[in-house]
Amino acid sequence: MEFDDPFRAKLLQLFQLRRDVRHFHSRPVPLELLRRFVQAAKLAPSVGLSEPWRLVSVESSILRAQIAEEFIAANKEASQQYLDETKDLYLSLKLAGLKEAPVHFAVFVDSEPSQGKGLGRQTMPESLEYSVVAAIQNFWLAARAEGVGVGWVSIFRPDHLVAILQCPPSWRLVAYLCVGYPVEEHETPELERLGWEHRDNAQEAWLIR
Amino acid sequence: MEFDDPFRAKLLQLFQLRRDVRHFHSRPVPLELLRRFVQAAKLAPSVGLSEPWRLVSVESSILRAQIAEEFIAANKEASQQYLDETKDLYLSLKLAGLKEAPVHFAVFVDSEPSQGKGLGRQTMPESLEYSVVAAIQNFWLAARAEGVGVGWVSIFRPDHLVAILQCPPSWRLVAYLCVGYPVEEHETPELERLGWEHRDNAQEAWLIR
Repeated sequence: MEFDDPFRAKLLQLFQLRRDVRHFHSRPVPLELLRRFVQAAKLAPSVGLSEPWRLVSVESSILRAQIAEEFIAANKEASQQYLDETKDLYLSLKLAGLKEAPVHFAVFVDSEPSQGKGLGRQTMPESLEYSVVAAIQNFWLAARAEGVGVGWVSIFRPDHLVAILQCPPSWRLVAYLCVGYPVEEHETPELERLGWEHRDNAQEAWLIR
Repeated sequence: MEFDDPFRAKLLQLFQLRRDVRHFHSRPVPLELLRRFVQAAKLAPSVGLSEPWRLVSVESSILRAQIAEEFIAANKEASQQYLDETKDLYLSLKLAGLKEAPVHFAVFVDSEPSQGKGLGRQTMPESLEYSVVAAIQNFWLAARAEGVGVGWVSIFRPDHLVAILQCPPSWRLVAYLCVGYPVEEHETPELERLGWEHRDNAQEAWLIR
């Protein structure tokens, strides 16, 4: 057996400490570490071995400014659905670390990948996107194992990101990741600490049929 | 720092050894292990802390037979898109371990979860499904760390699975997982070993904008 109890205990701790981070230090993340996170990402499963993940490191300050504006616009629109105290709470939440995070990765799926010959995705074409999400989760765990935090921002109009970053028309946004050293470490999600929502620890583990 | 170089080396090995398994021994997986995999799954990130994952352990042999039939029908339909040698190769591939795998998990997303108050999913409602995929990837890694294999089957018509398993109408299929001890261990994907597709090791790591 390649893996032992001490490793599994550490792995559980990694799952427990992997937070969605919105408060970053601005100091850079070494390129060598980013390479490792991407290496981990690309070891994810992919439907039909299509490897449809496409990663874009957003480094231009002009593009970052456009993306920050897009977030503000999308977030303002999103806040309209809430009323009264819930709206106040929503507006008080810090939902992205776009300004401070030293590294930004926009992660896309290629909806027409040259690999895989379509295997496994005729009945569930969304399995292409799912492959990209599995890659992101590997990236996230590899980053946390190096003490680096990741924040997944989904408050964007996806086609706007494709346009800002001038991606090929077959690419669709899956996630926008802010990456950097976190200001604080927590075992509890920020949305739980700030009273937005609680994890359902009583949730039945699984149903049986 | 909670995690050290030996742990990170093992974690990389875990990513490398995590295969999509289609050849299982039929011997059971201890319930205690399944609980650990599900615990790992539920430590995944979820949009707005919505925890939209819904797991169903399919144990009834009648339901398993219906699901196997559904796979055969969907796979036959999928094979029609291929011609000549590609079709022969496709039909020779073993794309699911439904018969042998001792444990079957159907994994759904609740598209109207009671948690999360909609946060983060107005612009990208698919982030609900993505949360479930992150949970599956945690499950998969936790299983592999115990020497247990997982095979993700996507060759199903999702609404047929919802009907067979009599799920609430707000649930949608994300994955059907075969779980059990693998007959063989490999560092290379089966689709690569059998000549269906190759991983693109030369693929540019990421673009810069």
